[in-house]
Amino acid sequence: VILAAIITLVTDFGIHDPFVGIMKGVIYSLAPHATIVDITHGIESYSVLSGALILDASYRYFPPHTLHVAIVDPEVGSHRRIILAKTEHSLFLAPDNGILSFIFHHEKPQLIVEVNNPQFFLPSVSSTFHGRDIFAPVAAHVAQGKALEEFGPSIDNITLIPAPFLRSEGGKIHGEIIYIDRFGNLITSIPADMVGGIKARGLHLKDQWIPGIFLCYAEGEKGGHPIALVNSFGKLEIAVNQGSAEKTLNAALHDRVEVDYE
Amino acid sequence: VILAAIITLVTDFGIHDPFVGIMKGVIYSLAPHATIVDITHGIESYSVLSGALILDASYRYFPPHTLHVAIVDPEVGSHRRIILAKTEHSLFLAPDNGILSFIFHHEKPQLIVEVNNPQFFLPSVSSTFHGRDIFAPVAAHVAQGKALEEFGPSIDNITLIPAPFLRSEGGKIHGEIIYIDRFGNLITSIPADMVGGIKARGLHLKDQWIPGIFLCYAEGEKGGHPIALVNSFGKLEIAVNQGSAEKTLNAALHDRVEVDYE
Amino acid sequence: VILAAIITLVTDFGIHDPFVGIMKGVIYSLAPHATIVDITHGIESYSVLSGALILDASYRYFPPHTLHVAIVDPEVGSHRRIILAKTEHSLFLAPDNGILSFIFHHEKPQLIVEVNNPQFFLPSVSSTFHGRDIFAPVAAHVAQGKALEEFGPSIDNITLIPAPFLRSEGGKIHGEIIYIDRFGNLITSIPADMVGGIKARGLHLKDQWIPGIFLCYAEGEKGGHPIALVNSFGKLEIAVNQGSAEKTLNAALHDRVEVDYE
Repeated sequence: VILAAIITLVTDFGIHDPFVGIMKGVIYSLAPHATIVDITHGIESYSVLSGALILDASYRYFPPHTLHVAIVDPEVGSHRRIILAKTEHSLFLAPDNGILSFIFHHEKPQLIVEVNNPQFFLPSVSSTFHGRDIFAPVAAHVAQGKALEEFGPSIDNITLIPAPFLRSEGGKIHGEIIYIDRFGNLITSIPADMVGGIKARGLHLKDQWIPGIFLCYAEGEKGGHPIALVNSFGKLEIAVNQGSAEKTLNAALHDRVEVDYE
Repeated sequence: VILAAIITLVTDFGIHDPFVGIMKGVIYSLAPHATIVDITHGIESYSVLSGALILDASYRYFPPHTLHVAIVDPEVGSHRRIILAKTEHSLFLAPDNGILSFIFHHEKPQLIVEVNNPQFFLPSVSSTFHGRDIFAPVAAHVAQGKALEEFGPSIDNITLIPAPFLRSEGGKIHGEIIYIDRFGNLITSIPADMVGGIKARGLHLKDQWIPGIFLCYAEGEKGGHPIALVNSFGKLEIAVNQGSAEKTLNAALHDRVEVDYE
Repeated sequence: VILAAIITLVTDFGIHDPFVGIMKGVIYSLAPHATIVDITHGIESYSVLSGALILDASYRYFPPHTLHVAIVDPEVGSHRRIILAKTEHSLFLAPDNGILSFIFHHEKPQLIVEVNNPQFFLPSVSSTFHGRDIFAPVAAHVAQGKALEEFGPSIDNITLIPAPFLRSEGGKIHGEIIYIDRFGNLITSIPADMVGGIKARGLHLKDQWIPGIFLCYAEGEKGGHPIALVNSFGKLEIAVNQGSAEKTLNAALHDRVEVDYE
């Protein structure tokens, strides 16, 4: 029996509406002793890619057997499946739309089931809010120790999404902006270990040159020129010390970057 | 003795400021084992109507005897009363301004008291933040099992607000937009059961025709024309698949809608 | 042994990103029974002054021995120190940049240590996210009862920031706007006890006259002219009843105000 004392939530529901609070009501109704942690509800609406990146950057910091519920679900109510997966470290509950893709790059799933046993759903299932009617009660039952096999049949073909753009050729590393955080820092697809062994001089974004690799934000000029550094998610990042690289560079998601090295 | 292990919060305080955190500090000081759940703090500032709608859409998903604290309170510090109510399912603490109106459409209150016993308030009560000085400590004492009668005298005349606009005549159902969620979905005052038994062809909003009734968001054209469907709150809703009906239709709260049926 | 059952968080991390959720994962991994309370993550980016004000307005409403973790940390990864402090009422963990200044006006610290024992950090410490790699695990160890002396050496010279502008001369009290809340209320640096003993007629902000001192928001004209009152933080505040004083007066942080009295 797996006892998931902690249930995390990653959604694009925002917190303006009562959606998240209602889900917690359902969870506590069935699993009164669960600890529910909001990872974020600020995923860009409908962006499965952002949800996948954020979940991947977060899940390993939680205790073993934490159940991560990731809902970015533009196809809610259609025929997309809902899946429940177990890796060595964690449990995951999500629509089958690729949001678990990057997790499975690191950890092979030991078991994936398609969640289709209505015994664990709310009695009446809407077609627009499966977070409340399916995800929340299923999460609560998992937290209460119900075996994964009871939720539906084991499957092995799930939806995956392509990794963000990343290529090394002609003495350059090519990547893209994959996430922009609240400070306007631009997170790229280029992992730390690709720049760890080389002498990177910095990177290009559009017509701009961003020097690097620096160690921390405070090494840049305050409110001044952007710098490149390795961030806490293990990616190359472009930042302005106490300013916004997003605004300074007028940058957007998926903008291409190129690393120059010696 | 009623033991409310769960205290929920519905407010228009936002989360930019420390108001909600401070309330939690007061609650935990008096009821260390309470579980506090944020339903939302994003109610439109001073909108008692929005608070009433959201509370009504949320409370029934929480365990029995949950205490719901609803604070949208433009009259804070004036002579408006504070009330504590018990229905068969739940407990409610709120200013007496109508925010509990829609709850009482569904569940007759078994007891309503006016909260006026300062023994359960903080020692010093400000005139601008009763959330901290009255609502939080009273909620904590209720959660600790204090009998409702101790907080003040029983009353039976409370403030109610009118239900949103809704009328059926001339072969049409007339309603209004009562809530707009973070995705730009337009929730109307028309309940599912009014369109359940008829063959609705769709609805008018301003000069626009919105076909329906569809089953889920994914049945609409992606980013395309709005569709009507029954939403998770049991209301008729206008939505754009992966887009914003609010922006597409340039719609606002209280815009009128008309359902055509055969 | 001090057992801090409650850990609060005051940061400028926002809630759009997973930073706060990740910190909670680290805390629960080491202190599974901690209660974590978000005071706010909406501090203006990099504003140590705002963080200091909000922490000071909040901490006393929490139970004794609560550990308050305050992270507004523009110098993260540079040589700024991290400090852990104990006062009679509470515990504080923060960068040594002045964010605890106003606390120490009220309560003399009994012990301050510089946190430099890597035994209590995550095994790998990034230079951009000490919230996750240092603050969270240290907070968890404090909550588990570890003696403060184990985290590093006792120090007595810490960074302080100047108090906001406040002066009494020529029959007037001069102050400044120190915080603007979500409702657009303008909080000034002028404490209630400076206007408690005088007959204040109101105050000037730019060329505007704001009458006062009123008792509650509802005494102002709805959406009309701003009024002055004493707010829940014990400061003089300028507010519009059900409106925004910030917008009405086109006011900004650090705008000067003058109180006239008889």
